[in-house]
Amino acid sequence: MRQAGRYLPEYRRLREKLSFLEMCRRPEVAAEVTLQPLRRFDLDAAIIFSDILLPIQAIGVGLVFTRNDGPMIRKPVRNRAQANRIRCFSPEEELHYVFEAIRLVRKELDEKIPLIGFSGAPFTIASYLVEGGHSRNFEKTKGLMYEEPLVWHNMMETLTNGLASYLKAQVNAGAQALQVFDSWVGCLCPEDYRKFVFPHSKALMEKLKQLGAPVIHFGTGTSELLPLMKEAGGDVIGVDWRIPIDEAWRKIGFKKAIQGNLDPVVLLGSKQDIRKKVRSILIKAGGRPGHIFNLGHGIFPGTPVRNVAFLVDAVHRLSRASAGNV
Amino acid sequence: MRQAGRYLPEYRRLREKLSFLEMCRRPEVAAEVTLQPLRRFDLDAAIIFSDILLPIQAIGVGLVFTRNDGPMIRKPVRNRAQANRIRCFSPEEELHYVFEAIRLVRKELDEKIPLIGFSGAPFTIASYLVEGGHSRNFEKTKGLMYEEPLVWHNMMETLTNGLASYLKAQVNAGAQALQVFDSWVGCLCPEDYRKFVFPHSKALMEKLKQLGAPVIHFGTGTSELLPLMKEAGGDVIGVDWRIPIDEAWRKIGFKKAIQGNLDPVVLLGSKQDIRKKVRSILIKAGGRPGHIFNLGHGIFPGTPVRNVAFLVDAVHRLSRASAGNV
Repeated sequence: MRQAGRYLPEYRRLREKLSFLEMCRRPEVAAEVTLQPLRRFDLDAAIIFSDILLPIQAIGVGLVFTRNDGPMIRKPVRNRAQANRIRCFSPEEELHYVFEAIRLVRKELDEKIPLIGFSGAPFTIASYLVEGGHSRNFEKTKGLMYEEPLVWHNMMETLTNGLASYLKAQVNAGAQALQVFDSWVGCLCPEDYRKFVFPHSKALMEKLKQLGAPVIHFGTGTSELLPLMKEAGGDVIGVDWRIPIDEAWRKIGFKKAIQGNLDPVVLLGSKQDIRKKVRSILIKAGGRPGHIFNLGHGIFPGTPVRNVAFLVDAVHRLSRASAGNV
Repeated sequence: MRQAGRYLPEYRRLREKLSFLEMCRRPEVAAEVTLQPLRRFDLDAAIIFSDILLPIQAIGVGLVFTRNDGPMIRKPVRNRAQANRIRCFSPEEELHYVFEAIRLVRKELDEKIPLIGFSGAPFTIASYLVEGGHSRNFEKTKGLMYEEPLVWHNMMETLTNGLASYLKAQVNAGAQALQVFDSWVGCLCPEDYRKFVFPHSKALMEKLKQLGAPVIHFGTGTSELLPLMKEAGGDVIGVDWRIPIDEAWRKIGFKKAIQGNLDPVVLLGSKQDIRKKVRSILIKAGGRPGHIFNLGHGIFPGTPVRNVAFLVDAVHRLSRASAGNV
């Protein structure tokens, strides 16, 4: 969850010299930034430095990042003609720098910890394409879904195929696990998810299965969507803090692994509060195998570095202790 | 759910001449705007034109509304000293114009349909006070909760007492039902809700019980909070579209009434889609008594008036039809 990034001074020093996109596009910089948090913290996995929207650069919709690294799309997709622009979507052809960064990181990591590759899920990518940036109500996305279902499904199918190739190329380059971020899917009711998203997420997950790398299927605000997300696929389901992790695990069944679910806001507070929240999550997870401790969403730029160090240590310490009690 | 407002041309004509706050503050204007949708649509209730944040004008934190009617607070509350400013919070002393507007509307309505009064809930009001406006992550609100729990609880208690008096004064002026909007409470996990919000929402609901007017307790993204919100109180629980209404009703128990839950985005689309969604909600509600059909959140300014007319008609027509089938 943005394990590399603006909360690290060594990241900010690089960011002063380069734009966010340039940082992603230079393999040696992306690799360096990926490795930065690993030098500071005793993390159990690395995640490649990139952005969930990088694949849509290949479409030519004018993806740019604002000064705060927020994505903006200059030519959003709002009708059939605009959707046709993305008919040939093969992001893997243009994203060599991502694969090169993955290769560089793998070389550095030297099998000590696994490297995770990632991408946005079809719905979340589509929502950015249609809205033109982050949205509060997703009215244009839902509008296209409802009013032009064929255009919507075609676009989702195209995105799904492109994202599958892109993620496959990441595994070929050395990614040992994948995370698919359906970050904004929680704006939908289960009925709409089933109709407009599920078939495509399921198709993507089916394709990823053949790669042999475990897949984390993540979303926020997904209380009511979890059974469907589980059915769509993924070896691990990632959840945010809005749902207690035991409740979420019951919803997806204990045969699936689960990832989560510390509210990143907690990292802005005191060590005492961090410890309290970590303990509460570990107690709820019950020391059961298949729990991957993680934040429920991206880390905030203002997070004190010492709090991240404290968190990583607390998770290790307390999970050993709780495993002893189970 | 903003039944009066920017989607109506007759509202926009008034709004061109007056600021949003002025419209709220002039009883004859607020009454006129309250009545506008009733002249167009066959609605079953009226809701007074006002804003959930009006009560905090009395604190002197510098509440203003931007050109798009979005609230901004110039002097937000982020520490103990700033929280002390709201020690004496008696909004009912300064909000005579709301009560006057209620009296004017009641006179016009002449007992034909009931009039609903409303306010923000303590948490949602507090979140605006602390964040200074709308927030995506509520990090300052949660920060204050975690780091200064005493300051937080004192502030919530003060708000609760003030809001109770304000809502009581609305009933005294003629409001026949009340809606308490905890619009942003869905950003919390159940553990935090129980600790930092529940005692205050419960205290508010207890006080309101004595007024004899039914109370609607509303929030969005509340899947995991519903059992606690029900326990906190209210005769009706209001939900958004993220949870199917039958699922929500099961969670609060069928002895409570339920309000909801059409996604307001649907009103931007076609009649066919509106009809489909209305039918789906009515089928889920099963024709059971105690379902109040409503939007799951505020209507969008760009909503076509004809779609609202179609919705009101469709709800009446289809609910009569489905009641026949039960």
